[in-house]
Amino acid sequence: MGVIEGEKDKVLIIGATGYLGRRLVKASMDLGHPTFVLYRPEVASDAEKVQMLIGFKMQGATLLQGSLDDHNSLVTALRQVDVVVSAVAGNHLRHAVLEQLKLIEAIKEVGTIKRFLPSEFGMDVDRMEHAIPPGAYVFTDKRVIRRAIEKANIPYTYISANCCAGYFLAALAQLGHFMPPTDHALIYGDGDKKCIWVDEDDMATYAMMAVDDPRALNKTLYLRPRGNILTQMEVVHTWEKIIGKELKKTFVSQDEWLGSIDKVAPPLQIGVAHLYQIFYHGDLEFEVEGPHGVDSNDLYPNYKYVTAEEYLKRFA
Amino acid sequence: MGVIEGEKDKVLIIGATGYLGRRLVKASMDLGHPTFVLYRPEVASDAEKVQMLIGFKMQGATLLQGSLDDHNSLVTALRQVDVVVSAVAGNHLRHAVLEQLKLIEAIKEVGTIKRFLPSEFGMDVDRMEHAIPPGAYVFTDKRVIRRAIEKANIPYTYISANCCAGYFLAALAQLGHFMPPTDHALIYGDGDKKCIWVDEDDMATYAMMAVDDPRALNKTLYLRPRGNILTQMEVVHTWEKIIGKELKKTFVSQDEWLGSIDKVAPPLQIGVAHLYQIFYHGDLEFEVEGPHGVDSNDLYPNYKYVTAEEYLKRFA
Repeated sequence: MGVIEGEKDKVLIIGATGYLGRRLVKASMDLGHPTFVLYRPEVASDAEKVQMLIGFKMQGATLLQGSLDDHNSLVTALRQVDVVVSAVAGNHLRHAVLEQLKLIEAIKEVGTIKRFLPSEFGMDVDRMEHAIPPGAYVFTDKRVIRRAIEKANIPYTYISANCCAGYFLAALAQLGHFMPPTDHALIYGDGDKKCIWVDEDDMATYAMMAVDDPRALNKTLYLRPRGNILTQMEVVHTWEKIIGKELKKTFVSQDEWLGSIDKVAPPLQIGVAHLYQIFYHGDLEFEVEGPHGVDSNDLYPNYKYVTAEEYLKRFA
Repeated sequence: MGVIEGEKDKVLIIGATGYLGRRLVKASMDLGHPTFVLYRPEVASDAEKVQMLIGFKMQGATLLQGSLDDHNSLVTALRQVDVVVSAVAGNHLRHAVLEQLKLIEAIKEVGTIKRFLPSEFGMDVDRMEHAIPPGAYVFTDKRVIRRAIEKANIPYTYISANCCAGYFLAALAQLGHFMPPTDHALIYGDGDKKCIWVDEDDMATYAMMAVDDPRALNKTLYLRPRGNILTQMEVVHTWEKIIGKELKKTFVSQDEWLGSIDKVAPPLQIGVAHLYQIFYHGDLEFEVEGPHGVDSNDLYPNYKYVTAEEYLKRFA
């Protein structure tokens, strides 16, 4: 299969062709893990995904046909690996997260999985009980998964990855846009709430560094690249400095922002709600607490993450 | 911009984030062409395409904002380059091909473009006047573009790339599937018409080798990797040899196949019609004729293309 067998844990990735999944596959292989990818038979009707899978294989991954709906396929796959990392769809497919309950059943049955990373990669869902709809349901679903993992005594790491750079930083948190504006930006409130902006490739690398790290066993690992804990206004100023131009700014009050939620399409409503949590309610403004929380800065202080400035410079 | 300026022609790619476009960008850079990519402002709302564009830029391409609907943006872009390669959508967006008439106007106005490769990359459309609907319209539209190019005296190369491996070879030409079957295959007629199966990365490399090749000036370049001129049955046997198993085969008569056209969704109807042309009507069974046709085997006899067997082995 082209996999170099070493002492590294064997990793199974679920949701490998997705936005984060493909990065997890790459990070897993880059870190030397024998890497296995579960793919659904239905993927055969999607030429792009098939080619991505074949690309993984050509780089050394092992493809395993299976599905969360096919218990035997899961058991067969799980018997070949040590670690399971799931990146099933979160926000975009309602209740896809809950499909992982089937995976948990199979992991319990097999009994040899040394670490399970469920699909998280966002805010710390156990701190989001107060979240408003429709942004709340993904937190709710992920909490259901956490409790099921703990009840089954499955060794886990929860990756609280905070805010995907491509979705938040790339457009200075302008909803529905993914390139930085050069004229005008909406500023949420006073733009003074701290957010944590994390490059997706870094998310994947942190996650894969954690899979066999005993310090992350049964913990929530918070990805908090120290230089990337910045307010929206600090990010906007960084971009203004890069392009040598000041943006016009419209300051949006909390009431205006929450009032906009009914005026956008349902998928964007989730975005409005999540931006509210971060930029008005300040839900990323907390310090990591032990004993169940660990900070990526403490575990991997020498990891060279992509800084917000480096990321934005790519667009200039 | 990270572009290494050399003596190589500067290339502008249109449709760069598409299925072939992204490969053309890579091939252009791999062959040392300073490479420019036109992107529409609307792409900012598509996170995946934005990230692809930024990926091109990080590898050395220059991004130019513009659109076929914005004449000034085209003129500005064209003034910076020597060669234009278009990969606008063909089959899937009706009449997207005709949008290139706007590009031709701009190329005419600028007057300095040394070579234009319009969006072709399929069958030789001048041999397809007899094609049946709805597969015919894409041939018709591409013929309109050819005639407009010739009328404007724009130096051109038409790349007749034949059949994309990912769409045809990957599933042994099973409609709507892109992985090879392991149990059963439909065989069109007796499976004895010659088809030409070409890896998409090879298509892109051939095209980019031709952009500054005087032997391809004002010619149709036929991509005909000699070992990949194979009937469907030969391809099926290649796969059977790889997996060590004989597939069950259902032989579909021409009447049955044509009768199925009304029973599938409109996008697939185009596929049914094109498969008819190739596998029943035998439209790829011809020899390249001069003076306007050139054969990739004659121009690039030493190029190491991906063979059908190598391609299929990736799936085993």
